[in-house]
Amino acid sequence: MTQAPAAAPHRIVVVGAGFAGLQLVHDLRGADCAITLIDQRNHHLFQLLLYQVATTLLATSEIAWPIRRVLRDRPEVVTLLARVTGIDRAARQVALENGGRVPFDTLVLATGARHAYFGHDEWEADAPGLKTLEDATTIRRRLLLAFERAELTADPAERDANLTFAIIGGGPTGVELAGIVADLAHRVLPREFRRIDTRTARIMLIEAGPRVLPVFPQGLSDYAAAALRRRGVQVLTGRPVTAISDREVTIGDEAVPCRTVIWAAGVQASPAAEWLGAESDRAGRVIVNAQLTLPDDPRIFVLGDTAHVEMDGQPVPGLAPAAKQQGRYAAAAIRARLAGKPAPGPFRYAHQGNLATIGRNAAVIDFGRIRLTGWLAWWIWGIAHIYFLIGVRSRLVVAVSWLWSFLSRQNPARLITQKETARRG
Amino acid sequence: MTQAPAAAPHRIVVVGAGFAGLQLVHDLRGADCAITLIDQRNHHLFQLLLYQVATTLLATSEIAWPIRRVLRDRPEVVTLLARVTGIDRAARQVALENGGRVPFDTLVLATGARHAYFGHDEWEADAPGLKTLEDATTIRRRLLLAFERAELTADPAERDANLTFAIIGGGPTGVELAGIVADLAHRVLPREFRRIDTRTARIMLIEAGPRVLPVFPQGLSDYAAAALRRRGVQVLTGRPVTAISDREVTIGDEAVPCRTVIWAAGVQASPAAEWLGAESDRAGRVIVNAQLTLPDDPRIFVLGDTAHVEMDGQPVPGLAPAAKQQGRYAAAAIRARLAGKPAPGPFRYAHQGNLATIGRNAAVIDFGRIRLTGWLAWWIWGIAHIYFLIGVRSRLVVAVSWLWSFLSRQNPARLITQKETARRG
Repeated sequence: MTQAPAAAPHRIVVVGAGFAGLQLVHDLRGADCAITLIDQRNHHLFQLLLYQVATTLLATSEIAWPIRRVLRDRPEVVTLLARVTGIDRAARQVALENGGRVPFDTLVLATGARHAYFGHDEWEADAPGLKTLEDATTIRRRLLLAFERAELTADPAERDANLTFAIIGGGPTGVELAGIVADLAHRVLPREFRRIDTRTARIMLIEAGPRVLPVFPQGLSDYAAAALRRRGVQVLTGRPVTAISDREVTIGDEAVPCRTVIWAAGVQASPAAEWLGAESDRAGRVIVNAQLTLPDDPRIFVLGDTAHVEMDGQPVPGLAPAAKQQGRYAAAAIRARLAGKPAPGPFRYAHQGNLATIGRNAAVIDFGRIRLTGWLAWWIWGIAHIYFLIGVRSRLVVAVSWLWSFLSRQNPARLITQKETARRG
Repeated sequence: MTQAPAAAPHRIVVVGAGFAGLQLVHDLRGADCAITLIDQRNHHLFQLLLYQVATTLLATSEIAWPIRRVLRDRPEVVTLLARVTGIDRAARQVALENGGRVPFDTLVLATGARHAYFGHDEWEADAPGLKTLEDATTIRRRLLLAFERAELTADPAERDANLTFAIIGGGPTGVELAGIVADLAHRVLPREFRRIDTRTARIMLIEAGPRVLPVFPQGLSDYAAAALRRRGVQVLTGRPVTAISDREVTIGDEAVPCRTVIWAAGVQASPAAEWLGAESDRAGRVIVNAQLTLPDDPRIFVLGDTAHVEMDGQPVPGLAPAAKQQGRYAAAAIRARLAGKPAPGPFRYAHQGNLATIGRNAAVIDFGRIRLTGWLAWWIWGIAHIYFLIGVRSRLVVAVSWLWSFLSRQNPARLITQKETARRG
């Protein structure tokens, strides 16, 4: 807790340039410290809109920004594109894959999460999740190729299997994906195919629990399920998936021929807990105290989806606003230490509400006392998300893309890139 | 040459949705025929701007359009995403990789070209060419990763090798690539790196012949070379590349440590000649007559970069306007046959000029009598290319992207996507 000597600025190493890490670096502007920001990607990703890349509404370039460009006016921040392989807590160093070591006085880990398959890692090849740009382009490629193969084949069974889509997990991501896939099949694509009627596509949203959007109030869940059904989505609740292959998905005992499966059912934290040798919860999240640091090391912060923080006996949810608030809190705590001032009180998560879209002109918003559905919710959702994008250019580009799609009823981002490699040897 | 019976419309199969194929389909609107358009990609690519994707000025989505969307108002056109494996001339069928066969009355092959390594195919892994969107994102990834690795490494030799870029081939593509890479290193990136000065990057444009832009008049070649040198590009003419590896490029006898090599030196036609068992030239192009058909089969057209057409004893160049003119000519010839009218006269290529950019505010234009250099040429070049894009949306998006880059001096499309796989086993 001692201040660094004036000659050598305090060295802060931040791993992960997601919502938490970038917010922290942003809030440390002007503090007397040298920051090294390490990420294995060269871009910050606006994950909230990733499902729109996966479903052809937005282009990859519209929701990702080079980290260097975001921080170009911050000469005290060194950005490194590198993969972290471990943390030497005794030597106070971060180890990189290329053999390099980065020393720190304060360490901030905000390395996010990946999807989890609940002991069925073998499902990943056939049921990709949605966390990175590559995940999104993989899902987009499979969605579009399925329609292409249905148009190409002469075999009715093959055609039907290609026109069957399974989305697993009834949380916001699953609901959002199902809604846009339905819009794609029913509104965007019909005029473009000659041999198939894309409106006959079968789109299943499969949820093991009793209802979709379980974190929302029952009334909004019911609205979402009804809105999805009106769009032609089969909402299958209380039905666990028991097997997935490249030929079919098994729901309970029923095997359904299906070529496109998307996984939106669970997440697993990054390996930060292993790096630290720290205690973690079942999802692999590092258990931190109310100061967002390791209980035994106040100079190691863990933030965002990698951290398990409790407030009033409940874990803080893995949402973007929570990650940003944690980044802001940790920056304030570090500033206080650097200035020799007392630490701020414990971290308090301010829940701002839950939002989810269900497709064109339909969304649900739960602001606690205020609950909204329908087109008004959809427009509020859109405006809120444009507001959260980084930079004037991005806001303009996404706003124009959305308006264009809305008015033209066309989804612009329909490129199939990269070859689909065989999923089985 | 007989007309198809009225009951069964004349079946036209077009392979390749590039400039020639798409122009032909466009010009056959309203003709009494059933068209099947086959491409192994789902998008038409505006290849003229591919180098801007490779060099971070444009996003992939800005220069490619789903073929289906372009043709959505043409119910008589069936679009198939499929790979052609051969042509059965006796049975009049195109064979597809999935086992399907597509019968034709008239066949149009417009399958383009790939880069050629003059007997050094082993160079491809280390010196990618630029023909597809994946080529462009591969080059972009390697360019950006080289700067990242230079920032990351502690080894000066490794840093210098990563800051050395070799572009092979002094035609328009090579000149355009070298100019933007120089702008990137000298104007866009310097403020974003902390440990390296990107302005020290060594950018070599290597041409075996005596001058860059050999199809332009000497004066414009000289201007281009001088403009490149002012931007910090080493223009090495009369210097053949003799070896390429993942560690270095050898120019004559001199081995230069270099991690990023881009190939812009030669093209090879698609395998259409093999499919047809037809005579081809050295670059693999099918030799066609002045009606753009096989000499022994007036119902098989070969167009664009896949065709060797002579006019006044000179081969027609492999340029986008030439491909479009051939598509237009073939459509007129097919229309005449369907109407029982006499065939049009021989194909005449109308040369509209040569254009190339050299980076911000510099271009060369050769319209024959009118020759232009500098900022005016650059603006004319930009406006001409926006005009040639498909659709209002694309024109708007590219125009806004360019204006933004011009005013902000930022290159927006800087995502590193897909993992760089090891180039050597």
